[in-house]
Amino acid sequence: MNDRFLRACRRLPVDRTPVWFMRQAGRYMPEYRAIRARHSLLEICAQPDLAAEVTLQPVRALGVDAAILFADILLPLIPMGLQLEFAAGEGPVIHNPVRSAADVAALRPVDVDEALGHVLAAVRLVRRELEGQLPLIGFAGAPFTLASYLVEGGSSRTFLRTKRLMYGEPETWHALLGKLAQVVGDYLVAQVQAGAQAVQLFDSWAGALSPADYEAYVLPHSQTVLSRLAAAGAPTIHFGTDSATLLPLMAAAGGDVIGLDWRTPLDWGWARVGADRAVQGNLDPAALFAPRPVLERHVRRVLAEAAGRPGHIFNLGHGILPETPVENVQAVVTMVHEFSVPEAA
Amino acid sequence: MNDRFLRACRRLPVDRTPVWFMRQAGRYMPEYRAIRARHSLLEICAQPDLAAEVTLQPVRALGVDAAILFADILLPLIPMGLQLEFAAGEGPVIHNPVRSAADVAALRPVDVDEALGHVLAAVRLVRRELEGQLPLIGFAGAPFTLASYLVEGGSSRTFLRTKRLMYGEPETWHALLGKLAQVVGDYLVAQVQAGAQAVQLFDSWAGALSPADYEAYVLPHSQTVLSRLAAAGAPTIHFGTDSATLLPLMAAAGGDVIGLDWRTPLDWGWARVGADRAVQGNLDPAALFAPRPVLERHVRRVLAEAAGRPGHIFNLGHGILPETPVENVQAVVTMVHEFSVPEAA
Repeated sequence: MNDRFLRACRRLPVDRTPVWFMRQAGRYMPEYRAIRARHSLLEICAQPDLAAEVTLQPVRALGVDAAILFADILLPLIPMGLQLEFAAGEGPVIHNPVRSAADVAALRPVDVDEALGHVLAAVRLVRRELEGQLPLIGFAGAPFTLASYLVEGGSSRTFLRTKRLMYGEPETWHALLGKLAQVVGDYLVAQVQAGAQAVQLFDSWAGALSPADYEAYVLPHSQTVLSRLAAAGAPTIHFGTDSATLLPLMAAAGGDVIGLDWRTPLDWGWARVGADRAVQGNLDPAALFAPRPVLERHVRRVLAEAAGRPGHIFNLGHGILPETPVENVQAVVTMVHEFSVPEAA
Repeated sequence: MNDRFLRACRRLPVDRTPVWFMRQAGRYMPEYRAIRARHSLLEICAQPDLAAEVTLQPVRALGVDAAILFADILLPLIPMGLQLEFAAGEGPVIHNPVRSAADVAALRPVDVDEALGHVLAAVRLVRRELEGQLPLIGFAGAPFTLASYLVEGGSSRTFLRTKRLMYGEPETWHALLGKLAQVVGDYLVAQVQAGAQAVQLFDSWAGALSPADYEAYVLPHSQTVLSRLAAAGAPTIHFGTDSATLLPLMAAAGGDVIGLDWRTPLDWGWARVGADRAVQGNLDPAALFAPRPVLERHVRRVLAEAAGRPGHIFNLGHGILPETPVENVQAVVTMVHEFSVPEAA
């Protein structure tokens, strides 16, 4: 088995720097668009064979060192009682957003095996099809990032409703994040039990907060999730964007691997999260649109900042963008593997 | 004259920490909405008496320590040949975006006195009405932030077209930023000559870039603008958001005062920009929606991080949001002044 990714999670030496991409299964791939032409996003997520197929498409097309389950971070919200829709071109819409103590109280507990069994079935299916050749990563949204969708009713630029609830009704806020931490923890542990060999916690929008607010309103809940995962035995990746000033707190919340976005030079970010963690990142997704020599310069810079130190997983700083040329993604895999051969002793 | 603001720009001791707010004139104020009900944004900017009136509204309502000219960062693009429109609820739209070398070549040079004389007239009018009681700040968008609107044709979340031009056609990119730096420099120098006692350069979206890209593609052009201002004799404020990792480079580009957003603890950010600069910031604009005790805690934290060191200008980390309660903005002015009285010797 190609175990570069799992070794890097544990900061063990590797023959090549492992590489995978957030949103490596997605609209930029013609194979994916072919399936999406016939099925909605939620249909693909609900049907294990489709989710497994989409998960494996980039494995076959790119030569990455890990598969990541195809799913959406908002899936666990559906059994909690949220009416979720993916409106064309608009991103997710939640028709009954959570904005009061009563709304939080009405959120239903989730029996993951029952309500999200299709996701766990997809995990088992992918594991079987990978035949032990490549590790499979599971994932979930972190309590804060999920809460932001729940409260805003969709995406946001300012997160104003979210912050108003946080500042204005801290008890309601903590009740909401507590419920989300419970579901997310159950969900990730179940993914590990179903066969996921690592999991990533996406706190994509935590960077909207000051460190003081992150520490007071978010950290304890992410910590709840990540400490449960530590006991489950699979390595965890803790990811955020705009997170330069949050890194020490995100590391304190937990995670064997801390994700860095492209705003954070990898060496600088690694020093901030501490030598006892691995790091993942951090090519700007926009660099995948650059001419090959510029793209190569970016890849070389990330690797130079990692300096061959055990514990670096190459990735983007955020997800692959929809119009990304596939051949450039393939080229990055080749470059990372070629440029990261350890020097002969 | 209340010279707290200008003294703080020069890192001189003050009797109270000076405070003003980005976008202190705007939709959250009933007086402003009354004028906007009768005039478009561009009409207000084009008529010096209206621009002056709107500039003075928050001075009267809030008790701030500085006025900032009411204008829009995109105004200088109109005489360059851009068809700018503010579509209701959608932000700015540029109908003929700049995406090629030919588009850049077609951008017209700007005679600021002629093409933006209405802005300079508003500066003179506000100075006269302020009667030397309060300083007036002028401002402009920085070359990168203006370029992002020009290339995207409006606002953006990913800045993908902007980065594609930057990576794919660096000569076109530098020609574009060179032209913008020329216009912005002329415009800010003219504002100072018309009476602005300080100017702020808004590089609001520079934080979309990695430090390496900022240094290669942006820094030289901001430096061109800021070094011209240094010669013009008025203090300059250099502002960005998401800028934690850019701060040393933004300081290197120039500015007597460096703006910090709320993601950057003020003491940590000040250490990164250097003791030879003043800093401005950095309350989260969303904190203005919080209950009074929470708002007070946030204000106290910012002041505690500044630690009474000469050279702190209190402000938000970004502009006031449209639905902000006016009484909370007023309360922050009172708090800042009350909490920042130097201790008796």
